[in-house]
Amino acid sequence: MHFRDSKRKVDYVLAYHYRKRLPRHPPGVGSPEPTRRSLSLALVSNGGTGKGRAELQGQDGGQHALQERPGLEVIDLSPLDALEEEKQLQREEYERNLMEAGLEIEKDPENKSQGLCFVRIHAPWQVLSREAELLKIKMPTKKVYEITEEGGILKTLNDIWCKLTEPLQPEVPQPENTKMKSLSYPFSREKIYLYNIKDKDTFFDNATRSRIVHEILKRTSTKSRNSMGIGTLIANNVYEAAYPLHDGEYEGQNGDMNERKLLYREWARYGAFYKFQPIDLIRKYFGEKIGLYFAWLGLYTEFLIPSSVVGIIVFLYGCITIESDIPSKEMCDQRNAFTMCPLCDKFCDYWNLSSACTTARASHLFDNPATVFFSIFMALWATMFLEQWKRLQMRLGYFWDLTGLEEEEEETCRKEQQATSGEHKGFDKKTPKKPKKTQKHPKAIDAKEKLTWTDRIPGYAANFGLILFMISLTFSAVFGVIVYRITTAAALSFSTNATTRSNVRVTVTATAVIINLVVILILDEIYGAVAKWLTEIEVPKTEKTFEERLILKAFLLKFVNSYAPIFYVAFFKGRFVGRPGHYVYVFDGYRMEECAPGGCLMELCIQLSIIMLGKQLIQNNLFEIGIPKLKKLLRKLKDDRTEPKEMDTNHSKDPQQWDLDYILEPFTGLTPEYMEMIIQFGFVTLFVASFPLAPLFALLNNIIEVRLDAKKFVTELRRPDTVREKDIGIWYNILSCIGKLSVIINAFVIAVTSDFIPRLMYQYAYSQNGTMHGFINHTLSYFNVSHLKAGTQPENSLFAQDVLFCRFKDYREPPWSQNQYEFSKQYWAVLSARLAFVILFQNLVMLLSVLVDWMIPDIPKDISEQIKKEKSVLVDFFLKEEHEKLKLIESFIARDKQKHKSGTKGKRHRAASFSQLSRSQKGSVASFSSQHTEV
Amino acid sequence: MHFRDSKRKVDYVLAYHYRKRLPRHPPGVGSPEPTRRSLSLALVSNGGTGKGRAELQGQDGGQHALQERPGLEVIDLSPLDALEEEKQLQREEYERNLMEAGLEIEKDPENKSQGLCFVRIHAPWQVLSREAELLKIKMPTKKVYEITEEGGILKTLNDIWCKLTEPLQPEVPQPENTKMKSLSYPFSREKIYLYNIKDKDTFFDNATRSRIVHEILKRTSTKSRNSMGIGTLIANNVYEAAYPLHDGEYEGQNGDMNERKLLYREWARYGAFYKFQPIDLIRKYFGEKIGLYFAWLGLYTEFLIPSSVVGIIVFLYGCITIESDIPSKEMCDQRNAFTMCPLCDKFCDYWNLSSACTTARASHLFDNPATVFFSIFMALWATMFLEQWKRLQMRLGYFWDLTGLEEEEEETCRKEQQATSGEHKGFDKKTPKKPKKTQKHPKAIDAKEKLTWTDRIPGYAANFGLILFMISLTFSAVFGVIVYRITTAAALSFSTNATTRSNVRVTVTATAVIINLVVILILDEIYGAVAKWLTEIEVPKTEKTFEERLILKAFLLKFVNSYAPIFYVAFFKGRFVGRPGHYVYVFDGYRMEECAPGGCLMELCIQLSIIMLGKQLIQNNLFEIGIPKLKKLLRKLKDDRTEPKEMDTNHSKDPQQWDLDYILEPFTGLTPEYMEMIIQFGFVTLFVASFPLAPLFALLNNIIEVRLDAKKFVTELRRPDTVREKDIGIWYNILSCIGKLSVIINAFVIAVTSDFIPRLMYQYAYSQNGTMHGFINHTLSYFNVSHLKAGTQPENSLFAQDVLFCRFKDYREPPWSQNQYEFSKQYWAVLSARLAFVILFQNLVMLLSVLVDWMIPDIPKDISEQIKKEKSVLVDFFLKEEHEKLKLIESFIARDKQKHKSGTKGKRHRAASFSQLSRSQKGSVASFSSQHTEV
Repeated sequence: MHFRDSKRKVDYVLAYHYRKRLPRHPPGVGSPEPTRRSLSLALVSNGGTGKGRAELQGQDGGQHALQERPGLEVIDLSPLDALEEEKQLQREEYERNLMEAGLEIEKDPENKSQGLCFVRIHAPWQVLSREAELLKIKMPTKKVYEITEEGGILKTLNDIWCKLTEPLQPEVPQPENTKMKSLSYPFSREKIYLYNIKDKDTFFDNATRSRIVHEILKRTSTKSRNSMGIGTLIANNVYEAAYPLHDGEYEGQNGDMNERKLLYREWARYGAFYKFQPIDLIRKYFGEKIGLYFAWLGLYTEFLIPSSVVGIIVFLYGCITIESDIPSKEMCDQRNAFTMCPLCDKFCDYWNLSSACTTARASHLFDNPATVFFSIFMALWATMFLEQWKRLQMRLGYFWDLTGLEEEEEETCRKEQQATSGEHKGFDKKTPKKPKKTQKHPKAIDAKEKLTWTDRIPGYAANFGLILFMISLTFSAVFGVIVYRITTAAALSFSTNATTRSNVRVTVTATAVIINLVVILILDEIYGAVAKWLTEIEVPKTEKTFEERLILKAFLLKFVNSYAPIFYVAFFKGRFVGRPGHYVYVFDGYRMEECAPGGCLMELCIQLSIIMLGKQLIQNNLFEIGIPKLKKLLRKLKDDRTEPKEMDTNHSKDPQQWDLDYILEPFTGLTPEYMEMIIQFGFVTLFVASFPLAPLFALLNNIIEVRLDAKKFVTELRRPDTVREKDIGIWYNILSCIGKLSVIINAFVIAVTSDFIPRLMYQYAYSQNGTMHGFINHTLSYFNVSHLKAGTQPENSLFAQDVLFCRFKDYREPPWSQNQYEFSKQYWAVLSARLAFVILFQNLVMLLSVLVDWMIPDIPKDISEQIKKEKSVLVDFFLKEEHEKLKLIESFIARDKQKHKSGTKGKRHRAASFSQLSRSQKGSVASFSSQHTEV
Repeated sequence: MHFRDSKRKVDYVLAYHYRKRLPRHPPGVGSPEPTRRSLSLALVSNGGTGKGRAELQGQDGGQHALQERPGLEVIDLSPLDALEEEKQLQREEYERNLMEAGLEIEKDPENKSQGLCFVRIHAPWQVLSREAELLKIKMPTKKVYEITEEGGILKTLNDIWCKLTEPLQPEVPQPENTKMKSLSYPFSREKIYLYNIKDKDTFFDNATRSRIVHEILKRTSTKSRNSMGIGTLIANNVYEAAYPLHDGEYEGQNGDMNERKLLYREWARYGAFYKFQPIDLIRKYFGEKIGLYFAWLGLYTEFLIPSSVVGIIVFLYGCITIESDIPSKEMCDQRNAFTMCPLCDKFCDYWNLSSACTTARASHLFDNPATVFFSIFMALWATMFLEQWKRLQMRLGYFWDLTGLEEEEEETCRKEQQATSGEHKGFDKKTPKKPKKTQKHPKAIDAKEKLTWTDRIPGYAANFGLILFMISLTFSAVFGVIVYRITTAAALSFSTNATTRSNVRVTVTATAVIINLVVILILDEIYGAVAKWLTEIEVPKTEKTFEERLILKAFLLKFVNSYAPIFYVAFFKGRFVGRPGHYVYVFDGYRMEECAPGGCLMELCIQLSIIMLGKQLIQNNLFEIGIPKLKKLLRKLKDDRTEPKEMDTNHSKDPQQWDLDYILEPFTGLTPEYMEMIIQFGFVTLFVASFPLAPLFALLNNIIEVRLDAKKFVTELRRPDTVREKDIGIWYNILSCIGKLSVIINAFVIAVTSDFIPRLMYQYAYSQNGTMHGFINHTLSYFNVSHLKAGTQPENSLFAQDVLFCRFKDYREPPWSQNQYEFSKQYWAVLSARLAFVILFQNLVMLLSVLVDWMIPDIPKDISEQIKKEKSVLVDFFLKEEHEKLKLIESFIARDKQKHKSGTKGKRHRAASFSQLSRSQKGSVASFSSQHTEV
């Protein structure tokens, strides 16, 4: 964890593979090697006693080496060696620049022919304080103030809650006094007396230190090679990796406690699944961005609890009322012999409705009046969740001192841009203008020059086109599955085997959904890569816009991918069937598929649950656990193969923290984690009307997910660079869009997919006695068997001779009516009711959402009061400090005066001017006085 | 405009009426009068040479007077005199406190037995700079920077636009260089060297000066009487008025130009109606809040131009296509003898549809396919308008330096609160808790003590109840008009006069609408007062919440009031008629009213246009011009009556600015102006589908309105206190709500009120040949005359014997059908189509609005760049200033050193410490040095 002097902390590590030139060139010339070694020794000595000098020496040495080498070796280098050499030079220049920026560097000697080398970086106080001021990092000042708590009932309730949840609280060391908060203020070296600096080595915690170093690494460029910061260097393989160090090992009971171990014990184990998350500690260790992610995930999981409870109640309500449900009873009643029209041409027979009894009963579990209530509940739940998140975000922002955080967009230009422009040369043909420009002035784009509109058009066009293509790919995949279903169903129904035929629907649905799932999983991976590539060719200006656009694109593609089959089942399946005698055919002889007699809702439910569960189990958990393990294994194998035995001794004897961390996976951003959760949020809200258990499954998944992610962050990833963010950015907008979309989708699911409206209509408009008796009969239309087209009549029918009329599910005029088989008046009346319900539901829920949104203030009242208080405390604090300094200077001047008086008379003039000063402009002398106290 | 010394500017004026005690008490004692006179003389002399002393003298004198008087006169004072005396004491204390706060005061001697007295207040530089620092008023610094303009096509277009609109630009002096902006920074006395102070008397402009004085007036309290600031004093009639002075006269060519005159000439005349508004000048003169109002009004008016143009085109389209419109042709065709069922029982005869030809043709003007397009257009227009306003607001905020404006809510407690608690004693019985408390500790509430929840409940309950009551009052008024219409129509149709009978509909509609209008106008005034009263009993904490709640309540009431009759006509009229033979009766024998044969849209259109135009003409213009004139006249009459002749001589000889301004009306806030415009915005957007000319009328009204308001502000009102606001507050939210509401309302108007959907349905579903021929026949149902109930058959019918079937407008089964007179299949089909249209329209338009909202960034790109630039320029500027100071101090120290060297050796120690200081901590010496340069 420290340099060899065991004093200076390692704040950051750069790792690279080196390969010495093989002794192909004349061994007599071999001066470079000692030079380099002396350089690295010089580097090590840097930061010792003779700071400034040693640096310059090392630098000079390096430059000499630079100048010497090209002349000497340019001839006998193989291309590979030339590349290596080039990288070596870049590294040297980069490290020199880092030292110029004030960082201190320690390096192992490259004493093998090839191997892994670590550059360890330490930031001394001088650098830290300078950068902290530059970055306006808020640091706690000496001043602490009390957080006023609300009194009355709220406080009592809160206390009770705290007591009740005590066993669920993680055992992390709390700050001694949770009611006090120390005032934070952007660090300023001028006002250093304000801060509570006990020890300059620990004033900035590890996360802040590494953040500062990372900022310097990002900023430092090697001019001669036109590279911008560490990002480019890593992209160009000059360095292998750059990471801050973990705080220590996470396992082992004996060692002293470090934050990583604490996190592992209280948070990143499955055993801790019932505990609250130690958010403050997470934030301290991983930074605000990751802290916010886990806070969000935690809140979401907590919010899933009530919704799963309500979901279970709704489901139970369905279970309980299933016996008293008249329509399913009627359907199962063998005495009501509804002879249904055949499900396929020629090979299918007439069938009795009571054979579909099971589906009907199962349907009722999800298709009952409680579902309507539940989907209103869930729409409001989503609004509440978003509101609560806004509040939590404000609260965290206050406690984490993010309130005044400004966006500093300009500086964080995209680092990989240049590397990108080199990589994607294949793109030249498609969008000729932009990459050409990029190659001409690769630096100019990185820095300032704006791409004009015409430069951007090809990129946008490609984007638009490809996204459309991808979406149509998804649609065709869905269509493919439909065709599979139709043809398989038809093929299976030809089968002579009775059991096969009876299980047609189950077999087909199950296999089709699994195919769907596999397609979704595959396309998801493809789309992730495509989205990234697409965003890169757009050349967004800043890191932030890059991330936002990437997220938007990836979300759009993955959303369509995940939901397209579900949308199909919910709104389109069974709507283009036609009617007996006039069926719609997809291909010659293949009828469009229709829903099960219980309604499409059941199928939607199956589809939803399989896709949701499958996606979560396979993609999120299996992939997330499996793939990193696999990658690690592969890397290890590769390392073992490429690195000769000589390394092993070094590794095994005493692995340093940087060695341990190097083996871990690099952190690649939070986007996949968020994406997974957001898609899940979609499953929970969008089709909740058809699957009330979705929140429960989501909850179960998330309880694992939190610990899984935690474990990954603590044990399997290198420590991420801490990033300050004051909100979750674009994700919030996506969530709010999904929330809004869910209202209209649920309205349609209830109105169109479920049988809720027809049942209501029957009960209050058509039923003879106000009960549901006769509902099934009412929903089935008559068809005169003799109207079946020739060749479509069932062959080998058992009933053929008894059947005059068969029934089918639709509201159509009977054969004996004037306009036979036209939509009946009931059809239109029910349709009106359905649409009226959609309007009513949508507007009601939207209104309620707006009300909820309006009634819950975005900023919690106590926090907004605290923020106000903080402001005034800050002003008071400053004034007080200044006042004290003023007193000090006054006493100083008084003493000075006395001295002067007792001294010679020549000084009187100065003393007078001083005292005048102190009298006339008291308020503003303070900073002067602060000098004096320090001098 | 100045004190008697013609130097010190009058920044604020307080006016009061005084009444001397009549010489009832022993004339020998008469010392108070000279005392008071000496006091006022002392006051006048204050601010002269012997500042501090004179003040104390005057104060002492006053206190003596205070102590003397009660003992002397307490016996022989009438109650009226006692009140006068009390006020006199309060005034004296208040003015003394103002002087203590540093203000300078000049007062006329009270040398008559009663009369008007002006207290003129001047704020010296000391006070101004102190308060400017306290209020963080941003002032321009010396630094100016260039505003980078966008290049390319945009600039060219902008130039062309500027050139084209040059004649429309008001001729106000522009700042010399519009491309430069001086950097503003909150005023700070410490950093006074930063600001560009040419003359301390003019550095703060008149508006800022009066704002500062107003702040002091608000803050200063008279402790002995528990009053908080000028607001309470005015409410308690201690002072009559408090106002800043106008800049001079607005008329007269000869005098030198002042800003008021400039405003009058270039802005506040009807002759200038075609010009743009000089927004910057308005802001400078009236402050940001009023500036924002006019900017908003201007933008709204500009936005009305395109919408009126499109509206006219839509109307013209209706005019042009009227001849080719088949339904109206069919209706007018005498050959199609549609015999319609009688419109009333017994007295009405069967009638021929062709007699309603005119209405049908008129309907087509507003009810054509272009209307659908227009209402989509208007929904997007509203979104665009709001987006543009956000942008304009940001732009103005940038140029007016409002960007960093913080909300300082805590301090602006409601000033009238105390006065209120005294006034509304009648309220005690209803909500016993609150006012009791108020009376016990009237001050406590003003200051800090929070009203608990239980204290507030009665207020809220009263609010809720009264608002409900008011709304039901509105509804009953609407219902009353309906009853009037039904009964009058019935009464008129009994008439034997043929012309009366033929004009029944026109007469009834016209009179009813006028009654509606009158009711609206009356209730509007009542509601305004009620809303204010309701908000007062709620006791909101701050001025801002008071305003917001008042606006919300007033808006709610006025909105319901204005729109209830229109909503009735649009959605309810003619929907509860029943059918021939089964009519719905309101009272015994009075049938529910139905729409004209052309549809209700025509009536909606009439209703809308009359209410809109009537409201605008009568309320906005007549009231706005007439009432102030009337009030002025009344006041003048009253003043003439109460004030004896002796004043006249004084007045006439040389009216000072404060005399002139006193005669003007006080400024009572922008709420009525905004309210008027918002209600108009509602007319323009909410029912635009039925009245495409609404934007045109609104435009015409607004062109007048702008100048009318301008004239009012410049010539008829006292100068308002300038208020800094960075946005239009709650009005924006109301506008955006109206915008959202308009989508759904227009969807319903098109779908339900207009005949758009039935026509579409007929053309594409029912028509034999795809044309509209036969549409009228299709919409009319048959009724078998013999089914009419006994006693409802027309008496004295001309056709009775020929008529077997009469027709009525509805989709019902014919008499020969099985379910005679039930709703037909067409009815349900059309209803489905209508509802589907609503869903489609609403979601489409909402989506488009979201897209527009998303595509137009809230902050204009150039402004956000400027703001960023300003920040960096600010930092640079500071650094540079500091650097210069540093150099200065270095040279100073160097000189000092030299001096010291040449002096005695004892000083060496100090010099060394200084030089060390300057070397090691250069960055922070600057403020010290700034002292030195000034000393």
